[in-house]
Amino acid sequence: MVSSAGNRAAPIGIFDSGLGGLTVAHAIMRQLPAESLVYFGDTARVPYGPKSPDTVRRYSHEIAAYLLEQGVKAIVVACNTATAHALPMLERELDVPVIGVVEPGARAAVRASRSGRIGVIATAGTIKSGAYVRAIHAEAPDARVTARACPLFVPLVEEGWINHDATWSVAQEYLAPFVHDEVDTLVLGCTHYPLLKPLIGEIIGRDVRLIDSAEETALDTQRMLAEHSLAATSGEGTYRFVASDDQQQFLALGQRFFGDTIERVEIRTFG
Amino acid sequence: MVSSAGNRAAPIGIFDSGLGGLTVAHAIMRQLPAESLVYFGDTARVPYGPKSPDTVRRYSHEIAAYLLEQGVKAIVVACNTATAHALPMLERELDVPVIGVVEPGARAAVRASRSGRIGVIATAGTIKSGAYVRAIHAEAPDARVTARACPLFVPLVEEGWINHDATWSVAQEYLAPFVHDEVDTLVLGCTHYPLLKPLIGEIIGRDVRLIDSAEETALDTQRMLAEHSLAATSGEGTYRFVASDDQQQFLALGQRFFGDTIERVEIRTFG
Repeated sequence: MVSSAGNRAAPIGIFDSGLGGLTVAHAIMRQLPAESLVYFGDTARVPYGPKSPDTVRRYSHEIAAYLLEQGVKAIVVACNTATAHALPMLERELDVPVIGVVEPGARAAVRASRSGRIGVIATAGTIKSGAYVRAIHAEAPDARVTARACPLFVPLVEEGWINHDATWSVAQEYLAPFVHDEVDTLVLGCTHYPLLKPLIGEIIGRDVRLIDSAEETALDTQRMLAEHSLAATSGEGTYRFVASDDQQQFLALGQRFFGDTIERVEIRTFG
Repeated sequence: MVSSAGNRAAPIGIFDSGLGGLTVAHAIMRQLPAESLVYFGDTARVPYGPKSPDTVRRYSHEIAAYLLEQGVKAIVVACNTATAHALPMLERELDVPVIGVVEPGARAAVRASRSGRIGVIATAGTIKSGAYVRAIHAEAPDARVTARACPLFVPLVEEGWINHDATWSVAQEYLAPFVHDEVDTLVLGCTHYPLLKPLIGEIIGRDVRLIDSAEETALDTQRMLAEHSLAATSGEGTYRFVASDDQQQFLALGQRFFGDTIERVEIRTFG
């Protein structure tokens, strides 16, 4: 592997199972306009949520190797499931700094909660890994955490049904335990979920704080770059977007997550 | 590639993006008890429905090569999306006979319809390919076909919500065009959909014929084996199940599709 550790002008590598991580990429762009980014979305193998830890680790390993070949100076795992299963492995394996989205989200939730009753919604893989519960208890050992997998939220968001009757019906069922447990803070532990914020807020109660780890992860990225003397010092960042399936899905749905238009997508296939 | 063409005792290879194709495997078991089967479910890369034709063809090619290494005498593509995108390629590439699920389903629909108004529901990839509309028009050029992608049905079935309020709400929206167009026959063009038969029947009207291609594909398999002098002549078949992700999902959900218990699943990873 080629390593660009130590090169301030090198881009940051960001990856996700698909397009959801674009919310994290966008937060980094806004907060760190001098940084260049290479975003990889594994659109050929999305979703990671229902897959086994071993498979998610294998995919994450391949993508990290690809990003290092592109000369990145640091890697942001912008996928909750990949963070939950693969972050410790990537930290061991890679010569560049790596951060995930779970710890920033957990920290923000602990800071936001007054009652110490915190809810977490995420994919089946993330919930089963226990990563959020561990990360919350590392910050606040006496927090009472309610966690639940919400596997239908990703396909509903991808269908664009962010305010459909069916989505209300699904969300009412998924969120009932959090209403019952009277959480005052809910972690949206999947990068697709922020698109459902209005609906989730309505069901769970508008006084419940909804934690979206994108902004917090961008702050962590800034801190990490500073610690390793890797922050870009001047100029404006450039952005590359890479997908493992064809461009269509990226160009059609990317804006929903990214906010801005994405004009060009490169392809890199695996397997 | 090793080829077992011509060997009557060799197994039939069957593949699907995941577990849905087990409905086809089960129909073949029941109709052809002397045949042995090797079933491959690409559970690490499921679903194929939203993926591009090129990616689905690449995956199908890899799996067919693996099945030939296992010594299969014929291949059944038990996945509508893979059939829609990859069947012509596999027919060209492989030395053994190959059949898919689209043509048997289309033929059964044409036979069942009195009014010639036929509906097709399937994944986004299958619908975009136009494979069903072509196959129906090849049998009945004046049929009036209404086709619609139903991307949420697969995740709803996998969540086990086959009679949930949300599933009713989704199905009512997806099926409205077929009620409007007064189809008398509806092709369930994805191997997950037969699990929603009661709900679909209730919404679309009980007099509408629902076509599930599993039984029809098993009949086609029998015909194909006879034509190529490949039918097993005696004894009882043996069954192997192989997945690309770990066994958990297969063992947990397999029975829903297969009807019988699956006790052992081998693993073969790609990519």
